[in-house]
Amino acid sequence: MGYMLDDLVAKFRPYTDHGRVAGYIPELLKANPQDLGIAIYDRHGHIHTSGAVQSKFTLQSVSKPFALALALMDHGPEGVFSRIGMEPTGDSFNSLMKLETFSSLKPVNPLVNAGAIATTALIKGSCAEEKFSRLINFIRSLAPSCYVGFNADVYRSESLTGDRNRAIAYFLRDIRAIDGEAEECLDLYFRQCSIEVDCVTLAALGLSLSVLPPEFCVIPPLYARIIRTFMFTCGMYDASGEFAIKVGIPAKSGVSGAIMGVVPNKLGLGVYGPALDIKGNSVAGVALLQALCSREDWAIL
Amino acid sequence: MGYMLDDLVAKFRPYTDHGRVAGYIPELLKANPQDLGIAIYDRHGHIHTSGAVQSKFTLQSVSKPFALALALMDHGPEGVFSRIGMEPTGDSFNSLMKLETFSSLKPVNPLVNAGAIATTALIKGSCAEEKFSRLINFIRSLAPSCYVGFNADVYRSESLTGDRNRAIAYFLRDIRAIDGEAEECLDLYFRQCSIEVDCVTLAALGLSLSVLPPEFCVIPPLYARIIRTFMFTCGMYDASGEFAIKVGIPAKSGVSGAIMGVVPNKLGLGVYGPALDIKGNSVAGVALLQALCSREDWAIL
Amino acid sequence: MGYMLDDLVAKFRPYTDHGRVAGYIPELLKANPQDLGIAIYDRHGHIHTSGAVQSKFTLQSVSKPFALALALMDHGPEGVFSRIGMEPTGDSFNSLMKLETFSSLKPVNPLVNAGAIATTALIKGSCAEEKFSRLINFIRSLAPSCYVGFNADVYRSESLTGDRNRAIAYFLRDIRAIDGEAEECLDLYFRQCSIEVDCVTLAALGLSLSVLPPEFCVIPPLYARIIRTFMFTCGMYDASGEFAIKVGIPAKSGVSGAIMGVVPNKLGLGVYGPALDIKGNSVAGVALLQALCSREDWAIL
Amino acid sequence: MGYMLDDLVAKFRPYTDHGRVAGYIPELLKANPQDLGIAIYDRHGHIHTSGAVQSKFTLQSVSKPFALALALMDHGPEGVFSRIGMEPTGDSFNSLMKLETFSSLKPVNPLVNAGAIATTALIKGSCAEEKFSRLINFIRSLAPSCYVGFNADVYRSESLTGDRNRAIAYFLRDIRAIDGEAEECLDLYFRQCSIEVDCVTLAALGLSLSVLPPEFCVIPPLYARIIRTFMFTCGMYDASGEFAIKVGIPAKSGVSGAIMGVVPNKLGLGVYGPALDIKGNSVAGVALLQALCSREDWAIL
Repeated sequence: MGYMLDDLVAKFRPYTDHGRVAGYIPELLKANPQDLGIAIYDRHGHIHTSGAVQSKFTLQSVSKPFALALALMDHGPEGVFSRIGMEPTGDSFNSLMKLETFSSLKPVNPLVNAGAIATTALIKGSCAEEKFSRLINFIRSLAPSCYVGFNADVYRSESLTGDRNRAIAYFLRDIRAIDGEAEECLDLYFRQCSIEVDCVTLAALGLSLSVLPPEFCVIPPLYARIIRTFMFTCGMYDASGEFAIKVGIPAKSGVSGAIMGVVPNKLGLGVYGPALDIKGNSVAGVALLQALCSREDWAIL
Repeated sequence: MGYMLDDLVAKFRPYTDHGRVAGYIPELLKANPQDLGIAIYDRHGHIHTSGAVQSKFTLQSVSKPFALALALMDHGPEGVFSRIGMEPTGDSFNSLMKLETFSSLKPVNPLVNAGAIATTALIKGSCAEEKFSRLINFIRSLAPSCYVGFNADVYRSESLTGDRNRAIAYFLRDIRAIDGEAEECLDLYFRQCSIEVDCVTLAALGLSLSVLPPEFCVIPPLYARIIRTFMFTCGMYDASGEFAIKVGIPAKSGVSGAIMGVVPNKLGLGVYGPALDIKGNSVAGVALLQALCSREDWAIL
Repeated sequence: MGYMLDDLVAKFRPYTDHGRVAGYIPELLKANPQDLGIAIYDRHGHIHTSGAVQSKFTLQSVSKPFALALALMDHGPEGVFSRIGMEPTGDSFNSLMKLETFSSLKPVNPLVNAGAIATTALIKGSCAEEKFSRLINFIRSLAPSCYVGFNADVYRSESLTGDRNRAIAYFLRDIRAIDGEAEECLDLYFRQCSIEVDCVTLAALGLSLSVLPPEFCVIPPLYARIIRTFMFTCGMYDASGEFAIKVGIPAKSGVSGAIMGVVPNKLGLGVYGPALDIKGNSVAGVALLQALCSREDWAIL
Repeated sequence: MGYMLDDLVAKFRPYTDHGRVAGYIPELLKANPQDLGIAIYDRHGHIHTSGAVQSKFTLQSVSKPFALALALMDHGPEGVFSRIGMEPTGDSFNSLMKLETFSSLKPVNPLVNAGAIATTALIKGSCAEEKFSRLINFIRSLAPSCYVGFNADVYRSESLTGDRNRAIAYFLRDIRAIDGEAEECLDLYFRQCSIEVDCVTLAALGLSLSVLPPEFCVIPPLYARIIRTFMFTCGMYDASGEFAIKVGIPAKSGVSGAIMGVVPNKLGLGVYGPALDIKGNSVAGVALLQALCSREDWAIL
């Protein structure tokens, strides 16, 4: 497996030339656009890696499935889905339009920014500090002995430049889709996006969403299934449909260049390649995953 | 299995009271709203049925996956997806809005009406008659020794009342998303919707989209996988996301009350219950499938 | 006045280089892009002209105010505005989006295509032939002893290529915004667009919408005021707001390059210049009108 | 005149029963829903009043034309309209949708909230305090010897509950339609909305936008004409088109129940009636103005 991964990384690293590092959060521009790395964490605890696996990067949108997991554990599916919809959408991740035309006045799903901010707002805690502690400790419990840090520079950068997310949060307040203070909720959201990991952590987190024997499940199996389903239908921004067809596994991408994949019953995947395509997904990472999943016949359908 | 199906049909038939037979095509109003039936066709050729399996009904939107299969066989994925997108959408099935705001000027996917009409327009043939012959014979070849007829009354009714579909077809012409005559394309589309089947046919068609040994595949395996993926992400109108989470299998519904389901590697499902919920799906049929798939643990994720 | 008009035409004819003749109706491409002409018809019956006043051209959207006048005379304001809205819109003339998001399911106003087609559908008559006779004779009565013809080539060209308008008409049928057959209504609409005039006719038609002594009014004064108001708020496609500010008079443009202007209490203006800007208005015609209205202080506000 | 106004106020006060005081800013709920008052300020300095003319109320959206006037005086039309559009819109006042679909990424016009916030952001000053001083002093100079105060309770109430406006401001920042801090700009916007006047002030302000002899003009005549045009095409929220047709004068309404009207060359109108219709306009105020303008033949077209 390791040998094959080296071949794949070598083959797809040149694809990084076709993408660009995310510029809308200045701090992200510091990433090396030619990085490409992959880690596989299988259910027997074996780890295979290749490429830029020493690079650290922030979770960004890859944090959304875990905020959702915690919100589900705090409120149950009914509590969560009375506030947030379940439907995929072809819109881009930061669209406000759907909010306004949807008669239901709910964000469409927990993986677009609007739904993710509303999900984060559901995490329980007496104060922002406690909520964030709960979330990062929860993530650490899913990837024990893996690197889980916090990038304060990215957090400050996001917080300073997050005008679109602020617009979304205040809009959510206006339509009563979130209850607390917009700024407190945004602060928690910017923090969750700034949690720092590496490829192995990402693969371990992917494994935590696989179908595991009950004794290994931190996330209740039903909730993990819900999350895998959202990842499959809307985990890759407005390229989710294309990814489902061409790659065929549940995955979640972030604008840091991270992609977390899940091969149910088998393993978790962590990919990092900060050069992004126009939809916000790692250009080399998607190509590498397509080749790997095709070769290993991992598509779920 | 047969005994359990009888129990499920008995349990969920009262749900038909919560829905209404589709009224927008007058001919469909003749259906018995209390009908509920199910057929299972497994890969070993065993058939289990219960309830209104003698009822005949038209495919309506359940025809879309098969028009897509034929278009894929005629033009390959690149030919099809240069004209039609791959992204799911939270919009209702007959929305025009996405057409106008999408910069790409492609219908979003082959299972919304706009994309389905554009897909049908790709079916090869020297004339409308030949195109329809190819399609209905193709469907017959997927469900040999099952009932596949044509309901001329429904066809006339659709043709007379299909103003929304006409609006979509002319819009598609205007943006050059279809090449031929709008009326000829619509005529073929109304005919494919009017193909008549029963629950057993529906289950056999579902099986034809399962993962079958190559010698049994009429639809090439790669295309069947593409179709299953579209069914999973957008087969149930704007309840597709909710269905994926609550039921968890690829399925396609039609406003006649039909639902065709696929349990990969195992079997095909045919459900009929013409009383619809507000999204256009069989209200009792969805509930029955949710109970059945949960009990049998058929969810793919 | 005549001398000044010659100066203005000479000054603004070079602006025709910055526009393009409408290509979406092939027959319109035959126009000479360098044509620029103007006629003024004042309330005392004096006519001043300059430039391409011998050129003949079709009314296109300039026909909309007169279909509205006839619909108002046939049904009264309540009858008309129960079916068609009164609000201006920043959308382009052939937008469908507003139709779908407006909860009222009425086209926004009588001067966008959707509203204009719904207005035309209100013209009384036992058959399409009679309806068209009524409309063209009505227009002739407003511009007696002026040229009012019919361009059969343009009509055929519109009819063959009017996919967008067909989409709109069928959509209007679907939402019950028109009662009759879509094709019959479209046929009348394509005919009204194909009525042929010259600059002097256009100026006479503009005068008919001015504030005239009652004995000269074919159009009842209240209805003329309604029409002038629509022309002011939405007569120049999605440049109506800019035209209201920069030129400041009620006007209606057509994609043939026609602009009909009204200076209340004073005169009617007919301008022709088929080279259009990207919003569909005569590029030299708008510039000429801006200079003329500014020099003569004709802005109504 | 005074006698007629008393009759009109008596006749239309019962209409206040058909409306409701704006509830989205809690402080506004304190208004007396049965209030109805009118003041007329003519160009000779004569004032006629009737009804609740002693009531004080905040300008709310009636402040928008004056922020626009100051922005025009600070930057000229080119400076303003490079950032803000000129087109009317049928959308409601607080819509975000247009922002997202407009390719130009400019708010559509200066009288919808998005455009008004962007206009306010253009007012010059070294700090928020100075900007507000300039604006309120400017308004005082337009209505000398009239009451112009500031309602600190309304300001605090708006500031606390202005989530929709915050969403708009951050969205404007995100698309680079405003340069400064969103919160500073919002603070100035909430303050301008909280400037307090009475009917006579409102009428004097209306007169300041009329066509006045140059020696009386604080606002340069060209800018006053621009503002009157915007008021005519988009001054009454998404009832602007209907108001233009039925009443026919430039006017601007606010959710406090204020309506400021302009009869060019003649007079200014100040109406107050806090019971609003569903579009946000004073229900009795609009009816009174329709009757008055019809009787006096004040419609501009």
